[in-house]
Amino acid sequence: MNKITMFGAPFDGTTSYRPGTRFGPNAIRNEFYGIENYSPYFDFDLEDVNYQDDGDLDLPFGNTIKVLDMIEDKTSEILQKGEFPLMIGGEHLVTLGAFRAIEKKYDEVYIVHFDAHADLRDDYIGEKLSHATVIRRCFELATAVYQFGIRSGDKSEFIFAKDNTIMVRHSFNGLEEIIKSIGNKPVYLTIDLDVLDPSEFPGTGTPEAGGVSFLDLVKATDIVTKLNVVGADINELSPTYDQTGRSTALACKFLREFLICLTKNKKEG
Amino acid sequence: MNKITMFGAPFDGTTSYRPGTRFGPNAIRNEFYGIENYSPYFDFDLEDVNYQDDGDLDLPFGNTIKVLDMIEDKTSEILQKGEFPLMIGGEHLVTLGAFRAIEKKYDEVYIVHFDAHADLRDDYIGEKLSHATVIRRCFELATAVYQFGIRSGDKSEFIFAKDNTIMVRHSFNGLEEIIKSIGNKPVYLTIDLDVLDPSEFPGTGTPEAGGVSFLDLVKATDIVTKLNVVGADINELSPTYDQTGRSTALACKFLREFLICLTKNKKEG
Amino acid sequence: MNKITMFGAPFDGTTSYRPGTRFGPNAIRNEFYGIENYSPYFDFDLEDVNYQDDGDLDLPFGNTIKVLDMIEDKTSEILQKGEFPLMIGGEHLVTLGAFRAIEKKYDEVYIVHFDAHADLRDDYIGEKLSHATVIRRCFELATAVYQFGIRSGDKSEFIFAKDNTIMVRHSFNGLEEIIKSIGNKPVYLTIDLDVLDPSEFPGTGTPEAGGVSFLDLVKATDIVTKLNVVGADINELSPTYDQTGRSTALACKFLREFLICLTKNKKEG
Amino acid sequence: MNKITMFGAPFDGTTSYRPGTRFGPNAIRNEFYGIENYSPYFDFDLEDVNYQDDGDLDLPFGNTIKVLDMIEDKTSEILQKGEFPLMIGGEHLVTLGAFRAIEKKYDEVYIVHFDAHADLRDDYIGEKLSHATVIRRCFELATAVYQFGIRSGDKSEFIFAKDNTIMVRHSFNGLEEIIKSIGNKPVYLTIDLDVLDPSEFPGTGTPEAGGVSFLDLVKATDIVTKLNVVGADINELSPTYDQTGRSTALACKFLREFLICLTKNKKEG
Amino acid sequence: MNKITMFGAPFDGTTSYRPGTRFGPNAIRNEFYGIENYSPYFDFDLEDVNYQDDGDLDLPFGNTIKVLDMIEDKTSEILQKGEFPLMIGGEHLVTLGAFRAIEKKYDEVYIVHFDAHADLRDDYIGEKLSHATVIRRCFELATAVYQFGIRSGDKSEFIFAKDNTIMVRHSFNGLEEIIKSIGNKPVYLTIDLDVLDPSEFPGTGTPEAGGVSFLDLVKATDIVTKLNVVGADINELSPTYDQTGRSTALACKFLREFLICLTKNKKEG
Amino acid sequence: MNKITMFGAPFDGTTSYRPGTRFGPNAIRNEFYGIENYSPYFDFDLEDVNYQDDGDLDLPFGNTIKVLDMIEDKTSEILQKGEFPLMIGGEHLVTLGAFRAIEKKYDEVYIVHFDAHADLRDDYIGEKLSHATVIRRCFELATAVYQFGIRSGDKSEFIFAKDNTIMVRHSFNGLEEIIKSIGNKPVYLTIDLDVLDPSEFPGTGTPEAGGVSFLDLVKATDIVTKLNVVGADINELSPTYDQTGRSTALACKFLREFLICLTKNKKEG
Repeated sequence: MNKITMFGAPFDGTTSYRPGTRFGPNAIRNEFYGIENYSPYFDFDLEDVNYQDDGDLDLPFGNTIKVLDMIEDKTSEILQKGEFPLMIGGEHLVTLGAFRAIEKKYDEVYIVHFDAHADLRDDYIGEKLSHATVIRRCFELATAVYQFGIRSGDKSEFIFAKDNTIMVRHSFNGLEEIIKSIGNKPVYLTIDLDVLDPSEFPGTGTPEAGGVSFLDLVKATDIVTKLNVVGADINELSPTYDQTGRSTALACKFLREFLICLTKNKKEG
Repeated sequence: MNKITMFGAPFDGTTSYRPGTRFGPNAIRNEFYGIENYSPYFDFDLEDVNYQDDGDLDLPFGNTIKVLDMIEDKTSEILQKGEFPLMIGGEHLVTLGAFRAIEKKYDEVYIVHFDAHADLRDDYIGEKLSHATVIRRCFELATAVYQFGIRSGDKSEFIFAKDNTIMVRHSFNGLEEIIKSIGNKPVYLTIDLDVLDPSEFPGTGTPEAGGVSFLDLVKATDIVTKLNVVGADINELSPTYDQTGRSTALACKFLREFLICLTKNKKEG
Repeated sequence: MNKITMFGAPFDGTTSYRPGTRFGPNAIRNEFYGIENYSPYFDFDLEDVNYQDDGDLDLPFGNTIKVLDMIEDKTSEILQKGEFPLMIGGEHLVTLGAFRAIEKKYDEVYIVHFDAHADLRDDYIGEKLSHATVIRRCFELATAVYQFGIRSGDKSEFIFAKDNTIMVRHSFNGLEEIIKSIGNKPVYLTIDLDVLDPSEFPGTGTPEAGGVSFLDLVKATDIVTKLNVVGADINELSPTYDQTGRSTALACKFLREFLICLTKNKKEG
Repeated sequence: MNKITMFGAPFDGTTSYRPGTRFGPNAIRNEFYGIENYSPYFDFDLEDVNYQDDGDLDLPFGNTIKVLDMIEDKTSEILQKGEFPLMIGGEHLVTLGAFRAIEKKYDEVYIVHFDAHADLRDDYIGEKLSHATVIRRCFELATAVYQFGIRSGDKSEFIFAKDNTIMVRHSFNGLEEIIKSIGNKPVYLTIDLDVLDPSEFPGTGTPEAGGVSFLDLVKATDIVTKLNVVGADINELSPTYDQTGRSTALACKFLREFLICLTKNKKEG
Repeated sequence: MNKITMFGAPFDGTTSYRPGTRFGPNAIRNEFYGIENYSPYFDFDLEDVNYQDDGDLDLPFGNTIKVLDMIEDKTSEILQKGEFPLMIGGEHLVTLGAFRAIEKKYDEVYIVHFDAHADLRDDYIGEKLSHATVIRRCFELATAVYQFGIRSGDKSEFIFAKDNTIMVRHSFNGLEEIIKSIGNKPVYLTIDLDVLDPSEFPGTGTPEAGGVSFLDLVKATDIVTKLNVVGADINELSPTYDQTGRSTALACKFLREFLICLTKNKKEG
Repeated sequence: MNKITMFGAPFDGTTSYRPGTRFGPNAIRNEFYGIENYSPYFDFDLEDVNYQDDGDLDLPFGNTIKVLDMIEDKTSEILQKGEFPLMIGGEHLVTLGAFRAIEKKYDEVYIVHFDAHADLRDDYIGEKLSHATVIRRCFELATAVYQFGIRSGDKSEFIFAKDNTIMVRHSFNGLEEIIKSIGNKPVYLTIDLDVLDPSEFPGTGTPEAGGVSFLDLVKATDIVTKLNVVGADINELSPTYDQTGRSTALACKFLREFLICLTKNKKEG
């Protein structure tokens, strides 16, 4: 595996309901070094993962276009060094910046998308660039979009999905079988942590009951990372909404498993 | 389906432990209009549901008898217009007021009761009208009582249940089979949201570990609403105990599914 | 069953991350008398359990050695009266004090250990007596150690476990079969409540995603208490981290089931 | 000084806004024994105060009339033993119960009232017995009412006060001079702790900006207790609204100073 | 006094630290109708104030320029009807939109500014439109700026203030005398509620110790409203940071006094 | 002024009530770089202060003696480099470690102590080294102790103070005059931030009503730093008890003023 380069994208400027994901990357960074290095799920140690953390981008508040440009630039820069970009959001719109860089590099690129929300609107109250439209924007650039865990959206999004994306509702049912069609093509994996059930992960702006478990998510991530994943992100931790601290703790633990999956599965593959 | 008329019963006057369900109806009302209209569980849109919200009753604090009378009057008024009464509590005692109106209209009427607590005491510290006695009081008026999810009560309640009600403990196991015996008789469905596991729904006065999930509850509600349901209530959201906001979000989402089930199942039936 | 004598060990002096388990025993005591006496899981009433609460030990802050001595003395005193010691922590290190008393009484004694964390380090930042080393210290005194639910630790702990303990990761899978080998030998049962999933039990210092459920824990406890259990503890409730109050409520409810299991299983045995 | 007998009146049944004062007496009791015995304000030690705590009354929820009767009975019982009744609320309505007992014993009795709210309505949404009418009800029984710190009420209350009570707005200005007219007549002192500024005492249901300080309150209490005070109460702590714990800490500290003032000023007088 | 027309500007898009003032206007609206109508400070009743609430503007997230245009349009519309615009923020930048409308109507217009922060930067991390530059932008349009309560800013702001504005640090000292020079010229009054001490008003994004009291603020507002005030705003309540609810309660109470001052002082003037 | 070297002492091992000051130094460090550099109180910029932050000591939990030794060593090391030691606690006992290093360097050394608590006990439940005994231990090493703001302690402490220390209760009254007698002798300044009123600084383990204000504290610090201060500490911030964040914000702002006072007063002196 090439070196994994992480960076934070602390932006929540289009969040329409409860802001706060801007504090996500730093919360993860503060706690990440306190968790155990060892994964009892994969018997693999973080010390055997080649990664670095480039810290947070210094994003301007209120200039969405510039924010996406800066994220795209950062991602391109990582790709040019032959490294693997792993972005920590921030709201889900940040994915568009990173994916634009990925899409420019590869002729074909598939998106695997874990989320509670479809994020497939064409616009949100007139706005084309929004946390609620991000996967629609990515869809316009991608070869295909595979969505899992989806359990919220308006009617138009589900109609759109029927004709345009592969969508599995509120679970990872059939994941392994479904993504086989991607073969060895490049894949961008975007994980909105609100795909998790709010009981396990309340620290997010728009909690949606009926989600997946941490163990489900780890297993699904293990499966997807056996594909040719070329970039990824984790987003939507909003730490202040969970004063027990367990959402941030879960995000850190998941990040460890994610880094390990990316590494061990490349090794194996 | 006739029009569904919702109203709030913001009363917690007999709550012996932690009060706060008085804030439940308004919390639901504030957030309900922010959730998506579309149910990805039933592919049905709230826009196709015929309902209105009559707001909260203006209940006097400290006068339990008058509170129940006002709730009964409101429910009767809705019934007389040929509409379907859907009450949002408040503590569970409010069910007695609504059920008295239902029971006066129908010769026979069955109660289906989802709850963590049996609520079958004859009195609670000498008081006949209490959140802990409400199903006992309703039992005295009903043809029969079917209870699901029950996982707390004193010994006498479980002994009473053995001889007098149909009770399924801490799950909906066998629900579909069990309620078949009701046939097409009128049913009142009362849902104490603390039937849910506290991990998913901590915003309630008396959380009881070992409960059902949101998806379980939606499925059970779908099944029961295929009966001849003539009135219903949802109660015991106490929003201030859950500062993550997800209990209120869940209650709103469940209300959407409940309204949709009432509508689509009548249509189908 | 002999009388069960409970006492609190409100100590969190070696906690390296978030302190607060010192408030655990008192939180349980305050709420315990408010929960129902009746177990709907076992149809058994707390009134038929012979137990008493000796209150909290008055432990000196900052003197770990003396704290452990005081716990050992208290446990010995209970054992000498022919009673069953049930300690409420406090951080997990308190187990060492109680187990030393147990181990002095019995030639052979087995430990059954429910926890998210292996607690098998030889030292923690140079310290031999720590919440992170407690089971290693107990191991040195015990005939054998059986661990269940473990899902966190450093690499060395899992290597140590492979050769030295019986460890089942993140579940109770195979529990009944595995512990059969203990036969009728004396068993000390130590339950770190963080074995539970943080969604159900967020009120603890180091929440670890991917844990067991309340019902799992009750079932596992029922099975283990059919062995010749001679002492036990419950620890690591840190009530202030869960402002919904449900962690304390769960701990109380579990304590009820635990007392009932100890009683009914001895009766039956 | 005769023995001071404290008791709790954990009632909040007519609270129209945010309930929770039912938890006040117990919160004070839990923390009171942890504070220092010594008053650095008066160089007097609590060990030199003759007092006892009779615990909380077991008040029925939802029966306001019975609640007031029980409080009256308890107060009468204390008076008959020649002891000094000091009640800990609960919402302010509890004062009426205690004062009825006082008023039956004495021909003339004056009320000194510290509060943010006038509490002088004749009825509150039709209800004669309410936290918002309590001083009006007491006024009907008392020789005269002196009010201090008042900074909220409707217009009718301030008009009523102009003709019927002595009212000082939002401070204790002139207290010493004003109460001189009472002479040696019996006085009942009722202290709604929301007279304090919410910055110092946020743990109350209806915080009103612009209040007095802790030191102001201690000084005012010292002055009033030099009169012939024959009964008293402290009320309206609602501990759950202040998660920093300082409201309960302040209430405990004030209770110490209050007990000391009652004792030292009688000794001196 | 002309009719006062209030509207909410729920925008926090340039907030660099802790967002949340977007929830301010609605929080005030929810609680405002629950407070007493009567001002015991001025013996004046809200019923004698001619005002209406036009609700919140529907502002697009992430488009600062459009947000300011919408606020300007709304303010102009109110002015054209001959009414008095009173805006409820939102972050402080919203003032610029309202002031632009004011400035277009009047040849000369003075700003009176209550705040903890100078808000005088020329740009904030390259951005000209920011909560930290808003008074600088207004300064460029205004005849003169008078600042009170200021206790935070970078060095350049205080240097700028020395030459360009009248600034009184961390109090209202000399207010009455200082503003006399304005005479009868039109005045826009902008009140950042963080001018209050965080002990009284913690519900704001950037609390600054050493502020003024509620009573100070009411008095200062009474004085300024004796000038020819032609528009005004209150901003920076961020309700979620204060879970005691007292910041919102204070804001509502202050709004009442503000409406009353605007009315009674015009009447008198 | 010599370079000021700050270091954190994240220890709360003898805290008997609510632990959490271990998180104080890091909380201050996280927020300090976000506050303005400029002091509007002294027109002095932090950029003109010569200081560095050596980060937190890595203190072992549960070994009080070793903790104090490590603090003493660190302080000595700073002193040997000719730098000024400024320690950030942690609980107040950490002062003893720092002061031992100071006392070894100077023949005579005076302590100026700002605190709500006298901290003068000879032992606390048998323990000589405790947050409640720390000033007594320092007294045994110091030339003299001057205490300000004290408003809590047991009777024996106030008796001890009468004969052995100079103590001003609950204010800084007379500070400037009183400390004149120190002349140019070396002074160690220890500031327990709970000297502040809990309304301004609730984020501490043992809040004591009736304290001083932020502005009082800044002024007093300005006065004391005109003496020959040779070392200092700030302690007892417990950030988790104040979820509004304003206690940490105040501590940071005070730290800025403290650094500036140390610098400007040396320059002037």
